[in-house]
Amino acid sequence: MQVALGPVGIFGASNFPLAFSVAGGDTASALAAGCTIVVKAHPAHPGTSELVGNAIRQAIMDCKMPDGTFSMVHGQSIDVGMAIVNNKHIKAVGFTGSFKGGKALFDAAAKRETPIPVYAEMGSVNPVFILPGAMETKSREIAEGLAASITLGVGQFCTNPGLVITEACNSTDSFYSELSGTVSKIEAGTMLTKAIHQAYENGCDRLGQQSGVHQMAKGKGPTKTQDGMVSVFHVNSIDFLSNEHLEEEVFGPSSLVVSAKGRQDLLSIASRIKGHLTASLFGTDEDLNNNRDLIHILEQKVGRLIINGFPTGVEVCHAMNHGGPFPATTDSRSTSVGTASIYRFTRPVCYQNFPDRLLPEELQDTNPKKIWRLYNGEWMK
Amino acid sequence: MQVALGPVGIFGASNFPLAFSVAGGDTASALAAGCTIVVKAHPAHPGTSELVGNAIRQAIMDCKMPDGTFSMVHGQSIDVGMAIVNNKHIKAVGFTGSFKGGKALFDAAAKRETPIPVYAEMGSVNPVFILPGAMETKSREIAEGLAASITLGVGQFCTNPGLVITEACNSTDSFYSELSGTVSKIEAGTMLTKAIHQAYENGCDRLGQQSGVHQMAKGKGPTKTQDGMVSVFHVNSIDFLSNEHLEEEVFGPSSLVVSAKGRQDLLSIASRIKGHLTASLFGTDEDLNNNRDLIHILEQKVGRLIINGFPTGVEVCHAMNHGGPFPATTDSRSTSVGTASIYRFTRPVCYQNFPDRLLPEELQDTNPKKIWRLYNGEWMK
Repeated sequence: MQVALGPVGIFGASNFPLAFSVAGGDTASALAAGCTIVVKAHPAHPGTSELVGNAIRQAIMDCKMPDGTFSMVHGQSIDVGMAIVNNKHIKAVGFTGSFKGGKALFDAAAKRETPIPVYAEMGSVNPVFILPGAMETKSREIAEGLAASITLGVGQFCTNPGLVITEACNSTDSFYSELSGTVSKIEAGTMLTKAIHQAYENGCDRLGQQSGVHQMAKGKGPTKTQDGMVSVFHVNSIDFLSNEHLEEEVFGPSSLVVSAKGRQDLLSIASRIKGHLTASLFGTDEDLNNNRDLIHILEQKVGRLIINGFPTGVEVCHAMNHGGPFPATTDSRSTSVGTASIYRFTRPVCYQNFPDRLLPEELQDTNPKKIWRLYNGEWMK
Repeated sequence: MQVALGPVGIFGASNFPLAFSVAGGDTASALAAGCTIVVKAHPAHPGTSELVGNAIRQAIMDCKMPDGTFSMVHGQSIDVGMAIVNNKHIKAVGFTGSFKGGKALFDAAAKRETPIPVYAEMGSVNPVFILPGAMETKSREIAEGLAASITLGVGQFCTNPGLVITEACNSTDSFYSELSGTVSKIEAGTMLTKAIHQAYENGCDRLGQQSGVHQMAKGKGPTKTQDGMVSVFHVNSIDFLSNEHLEEEVFGPSSLVVSAKGRQDLLSIASRIKGHLTASLFGTDEDLNNNRDLIHILEQKVGRLIINGFPTGVEVCHAMNHGGPFPATTDSRSTSVGTASIYRFTRPVCYQNFPDRLLPEELQDTNPKKIWRLYNGEWMK
């Protein structure tokens, strides 16, 4: 039987003040696992955090749950977070944010006298591969969908498509035109914080200065100081393959389009990329049949593979996997979204030769909780 | 769906040349997960390793599995093992052995550019708690069973009961006499290697010199140079609680008996111990009803809880958990024995919007493999 790991430290995301912060997916799954939690409120939204935290505290009192089930601390300083990770009572950590932040928590947790798991979701460029048949038959539809996905929430989704790989065909130029045309009509939008906006502008500047990279499309200019303008860059596959930095995330409404000369070039790019949350493939039936090897390569690289769809939406369901190989996360064996996320905060205990009355209810012979149980290798209720 | 993590590095145990070495549980579960493996043969049995390795290579050829599915390296040097852990293609490590060895691999894996999971099973003293009612009614039976468990395989099981905690009652002295009498008749046995034998003798010497510790019983003396003699030590709870070293494993047929003055003392000891593979409780129905709090404390400390039984036997089955909180293992969320051990070498991938024909067979609509699947939260075939 899976039992609770113990108190969990949770670091909410800056970009989802409700869905993935104080009362977000990490908090919900840790509580569902039976763990108490200590939340580090994100300094980008301390007021929202306080409101949500108070609502949780009230709910805990109303439900007569034990005092200390939930607590929250504020702080700008890295020391506050490190104090949580290094506290000997903390048994696991959930984090959503930057690579730098997540990796620092992971390193600290591994160096503890008693190491603990850190589930850090650290972002991704979510590569989108567009195969020739799809480009020839659905050029406009894909261009419009892609522009919408890049700019959803002013590009501040961790599943934002930041890398688009096209395989050269007769329609490549018209696809690029469609994409540029669509992008040019998109208004700039207010970004979450000044710091995120500044980092986005710096990221776009840095990307635009890389060898072989040029801006192929941009949206309407900013009208307010914290507005993020959509910006699409282009690079050929040779320059892409020779510069690792081009795979780094620019958090916000930007994307880098890479022109692959042919299928082998596409496979080289797929083989070179690191771990990401998702990969998407656009293709006709024929495209997909011809690219099973591409699918197999991408299986090794990401946590979610999408065919003829965009990665931005993340359904909270049993089948969801929101995770992926390093550096997308620090633990590719886990998801931070969906019911399977609960397992992150549990560990197995085997009860041998127990009298039925001393077993947890979940394991008693009569199955009083009517739950699914594995019984000699078969699932039953 | 769970997919293979990738190539796994496996470090076999010294103490199970067949069941937990080259073709042991780690190898079986990694292959079952779909991973290729690189085994580091244990230098304590290189010949056996070579024989078993050749049998596996032959089986792989006979089954027409891909070349490279299995490989093995030999070596005394730590560098050989570190080269496996630090190889960029290795995606996970399985290890059974000493704390020092397992922790060194864990630390190296965490420091890699791409960190990987290390499942190190590093030993345990497997505390046995004997409650007053059991001691009064089954003193002899428990003493004989305990002596047999301590000396099974000349004490070289990772589930060897190295710590016995008794709660004072009228029968304590007679239980100690029974145990001493039984132990005194047990012949010394050949230990696995000279180094293990030497470490055992040094461990017994060190334990016997600790403050308040005395040898309460010993078996028949060695007749051959590599013979391990059973040795049972005693300490009172005050001395035990003031010396952390008394919880350290002495690998071999020894055990330390701790006299708790009463129930509170027993609970203090249970609360103080670190992570172990197992804990066992001997008690009558009344004992057990009075000690539910003890059971709850031990649930937090171990991977397997046994009532009125000894920990030494480890059944390979669906319900087994052979693992436990640090320092028993480096990953309390996993078992190294039983079918659940396969999950260690897998990670989830979500296939979104896939045409049925492109899905892995395991996920296709008609369920051609007839496997149990979670479908909208319900298990079905």
